[in-house]
Amino acid sequence: MAGQDQAFMARALELARKGLYSTHPNPRVGCVIVRDGQVVGEGWHVRAGEPHAEVHALRQAAERARGATAYVTLEPCSHHGRTPPCADALVAAGVGRVVAAMQDPNPQVAGRGLKRLEDAGIAVSSGVLEAEAKALNAGFIKRMEQGLPFVRVKLAMSLDGRTAMASGESQWITGPAARAAVQRLRARASVVLTGADTVLMDAARLTVRPDELGLDAELTALAASRPPLRVLVDGRLRVPSDVPFFQAGPALVATALEGREAPAGHELIAVPGADGRVDLRRLLEALASRGVNEVLVEAGPRLAGAFAQAGLVDEYQIFFAGKFLGSGARPLLDWPLERMAEAPELSIVEVRAVGEDWRVIAVPRLPA
Amino acid sequence: MAGQDQAFMARALELARKGLYSTHPNPRVGCVIVRDGQVVGEGWHVRAGEPHAEVHALRQAAERARGATAYVTLEPCSHHGRTPPCADALVAAGVGRVVAAMQDPNPQVAGRGLKRLEDAGIAVSSGVLEAEAKALNAGFIKRMEQGLPFVRVKLAMSLDGRTAMASGESQWITGPAARAAVQRLRARASVVLTGADTVLMDAARLTVRPDELGLDAELTALAASRPPLRVLVDGRLRVPSDVPFFQAGPALVATALEGREAPAGHELIAVPGADGRVDLRRLLEALASRGVNEVLVEAGPRLAGAFAQAGLVDEYQIFFAGKFLGSGARPLLDWPLERMAEAPELSIVEVRAVGEDWRVIAVPRLPA
Repeated sequence: MAGQDQAFMARALELARKGLYSTHPNPRVGCVIVRDGQVVGEGWHVRAGEPHAEVHALRQAAERARGATAYVTLEPCSHHGRTPPCADALVAAGVGRVVAAMQDPNPQVAGRGLKRLEDAGIAVSSGVLEAEAKALNAGFIKRMEQGLPFVRVKLAMSLDGRTAMASGESQWITGPAARAAVQRLRARASVVLTGADTVLMDAARLTVRPDELGLDAELTALAASRPPLRVLVDGRLRVPSDVPFFQAGPALVATALEGREAPAGHELIAVPGADGRVDLRRLLEALASRGVNEVLVEAGPRLAGAFAQAGLVDEYQIFFAGKFLGSGARPLLDWPLERMAEAPELSIVEVRAVGEDWRVIAVPRLPA
Repeated sequence: MAGQDQAFMARALELARKGLYSTHPNPRVGCVIVRDGQVVGEGWHVRAGEPHAEVHALRQAAERARGATAYVTLEPCSHHGRTPPCADALVAAGVGRVVAAMQDPNPQVAGRGLKRLEDAGIAVSSGVLEAEAKALNAGFIKRMEQGLPFVRVKLAMSLDGRTAMASGESQWITGPAARAAVQRLRARASVVLTGADTVLMDAARLTVRPDELGLDAELTALAASRPPLRVLVDGRLRVPSDVPFFQAGPALVATALEGREAPAGHELIAVPGADGRVDLRRLLEALASRGVNEVLVEAGPRLAGAFAQAGLVDEYQIFFAGKFLGSGARPLLDWPLERMAEAPELSIVEVRAVGEDWRVIAVPRLPA
């Protein structure tokens, strides 16, 4: 029974992952309805404003939902949002049992959906493949729990830990497979965030290029239909309006200067910090309040280093290539440390080949 | 038939690897004698001056060697060294067929052993699992072919490519499993080579500590019985004789100064280069002429960088740990480069977890 629950939940998670590139600001959710050991309905949430996963699955199951078990990767909602509550829909369909992978991360409503089902006489349980479900929506969960988005820092370096020559020359450290992986990181993010150095020196646009995603037609179309918001951190507004970044579409500029105006077609927010720079934490809070779940930081060593030093990074994805850029080249992060005891510890959670390059995923280790 | 040849050669290579820590200056060689599909004799070369692999295997096979097939990881020798030629022993034993993984790498004698066997009416072939056999004796082969040892550079770095704090503080970047792996790299090398910076600042001894090898009792004893020669590159003879390095046993000092004397109990060679530093290539040639097959360089960024810049490195083994040492810390290699086009390319041939740390093995890519 437990094994069967896991198998159906694994399928529900597989469905949920189809929403990786499109559900923002909502979580990715999948649902499988099973009767007499047979899947009679499947669904996943595609995009905000459209039906939730449960509704798609119930529609497919129709009459067969009566007495069936519904597997959902997230506790069904009990509140009226842009769509009616899924808990009510499950009750109305006569479902006999509901298995959730995890409770709603919003502390205000956690458990309410399951309670509503239980009150209607439905058997409920939660916690099947919970870790996998939480990993899929780490950004949504962090926003609900802490009012901050999940921050992923992407870095590309040589084997000797350098990101560019001293001159700034930096194109193509890694190969096409790594660049496609970065495109997918951009496409899944709510926000792609960069700094003035990158936009000025590399002429970076930070857009998603659908043909470089390496995804199937369905996911490519979904990703293309929901591009991430591009955010430029430009404390002193050094970046002129004619750079490729601004020409590539509307963007949000975060600055430390008050009372300024954004370039035409763009938006500006002032989040001055105590040191005359942009207050990165306040910027993240402002993004979270707009529904931003995941931020991908693609910046030079200064801005990436500032996020790191401020303890705002949840995950590093470090791509490394088989070359040396030499000891005069730019560091991975601008972060001067004096003593070994100050050196931040990370857990390396994955190391994998990406074409000819490799990727390390590392997460900051909490102080003991 | 080909599959069977490979299976028996794989066993011969497994035997050969038992000599990893002890055969210097000889190659590691294994031999399997097979009659009617059954292994009737096995042997491997243990240490210089003792019988070759074929002799051990023939002794075990005794009369059963007649008409049998001998699998040898290296072409049997045809010359009188410290032991009589193995080709003659195989002929005398009445072996019917000899399969070698590779020919003798010494261009002066390559093919002679097989020829001798063929002339005696024995069926011979070569090239079974040749790549594996060559990898096992890369140092011996390079010395025979080029008069230079195989140079392996070991580096331990943080995720941001740093080897020590600016102050020099550097102990324990990587954990116990990585340190055991480094002990095994030392134990297999003919020479462990370091520089004055490392010996002065880290109080390094560069010895093999048998109890830290993580090997079984037999291999540990073999490794302990054949410690590598420790070589100190000290161009200006800055290192005083009372450092732990000199107290840990006899060493060889390479200097750029002529007419000096070694500290008591140690040896000195002068290999002055044009720039007033030690001529590293000439030093390697001198080591090869003493029978040195594999050199492990365990040095700071300056000396390791000098080997790298001189194009003298065959393999990098880079251990990396889940921490950042920051942008003020020491580089992996002192090797200033101006432009991306000068950046040396490497092939990453292996990335593997070593305890909590990871190891990248990379080899310089030849210019196209």
